[in-house]
Amino acid sequence: MTKKMKLYDFPKAPNPRRVKIFAHEKDIELELINCDMGKREHKTPEFLTKNPSGKIPVLELENGECISESVAICRYLELIKPEPNLFGMDAYEIAYIESRNRHIEFELWMQIGISWVNGPIVGSLGIFDQIPKAKEASDKNVRSFYERLDSEFKKNNYVAGDRFTIADITLVSAIDFASDMVNLEPKKDLKNLYRWHKEVSSRPSMLVE
Amino acid sequence: MTKKMKLYDFPKAPNPRRVKIFAHEKDIELELINCDMGKREHKTPEFLTKNPSGKIPVLELENGECISESVAICRYLELIKPEPNLFGMDAYEIAYIESRNRHIEFELWMQIGISWVNGPIVGSLGIFDQIPKAKEASDKNVRSFYERLDSEFKKNNYVAGDRFTIADITLVSAIDFASDMVNLEPKKDLKNLYRWHKEVSSRPSMLVE
Repeated sequence: MTKKMKLYDFPKAPNPRRVKIFAHEKDIELELINCDMGKREHKTPEFLTKNPSGKIPVLELENGECISESVAICRYLELIKPEPNLFGMDAYEIAYIESRNRHIEFELWMQIGISWVNGPIVGSLGIFDQIPKAKEASDKNVRSFYERLDSEFKKNNYVAGDRFTIADITLVSAIDFASDMVNLEPKKDLKNLYRWHKEVSSRPSMLVE
Repeated sequence: MTKKMKLYDFPKAPNPRRVKIFAHEKDIELELINCDMGKREHKTPEFLTKNPSGKIPVLELENGECISESVAICRYLELIKPEPNLFGMDAYEIAYIESRNRHIEFELWMQIGISWVNGPIVGSLGIFDQIPKAKEASDKNVRSFYERLDSEFKKNNYVAGDRFTIADITLVSAIDFASDMVNLEPKKDLKNLYRWHKEVSSRPSMLVE
């Protein structure tokens, strides 16, 4: 029996979810290792040898080497199993998909993150000095990015043009997390955004926990 | 005469600098087009057709197609001119370098950005509602990341192991911007960080404006 790669994971955490969706799309099986963030297992000295940033997901290869950061892990999976292609076929498409993925990460995900750390769930943990004014600004930025997406989805079926890519996985994870955990569900009148969300959410890969 | 690729640029802006350093390392000549951020030329309708995020740098190819986001532009240059390699040689190294580059971007650059938008230079423009408490927190996070880097440079010569890569370009641009523009120069006792900075800064590519 072949040894499987291990993914350090935590249920409902949005970044491990990105990798699990990606692996499902690639038909790659990973052994999921529960890293209990509630018990701060991602901050132990042992875990920091796997990822000095103390974050999940981490992919541990068969030889024990570790890769952190969702997009870096996904790119590794793309390189060891190129089909179906999710990162681009030629130099221009690879760069274009990366730019779109980064727009979602730096302009939407980052703002959702600010709303999350300054919101009620993290607040209830009492471990973080919250800044309500920062949350007001980030909530507004999230809403404004949703409007931009809605207008982009008038022209494009997917985040990076006419086919499903890593950038769609990044966006669906962001929106689902914002909706379920940060009280930032997109307004119902953003019809193009909802059309995209419904279509992407119907993929079997989206059912991963 | 071959038509050159164009880079939309602004002097002293740290992200265009990353691409200019990278292109110099690759010996790729780009035609620099000044995009005057002071006049908000990066927010005009015409510029938004090149990059809907309204940011520089943007690389415009010979056929008029545009790529935004520094790292995506650099990856494009790597793909069209593989030598010298700055993104990794095999699947593991490519993923590892990407993870290290992302640690710098998401944990250091992002915090420097928060200190910058809430600091005196942006404040003097009067276009942004500043949050002093957010700057206090991000200043502290930047200082703490410098300490982490110092301890990593005890073990590694470069950000991603034993050779110069894109991740070093990301870090040197971050530290130089933080030092010159955000009043966040690393403390002098971080000897390993300074050793790395001195070595990297001596490369001819670092002299680009």
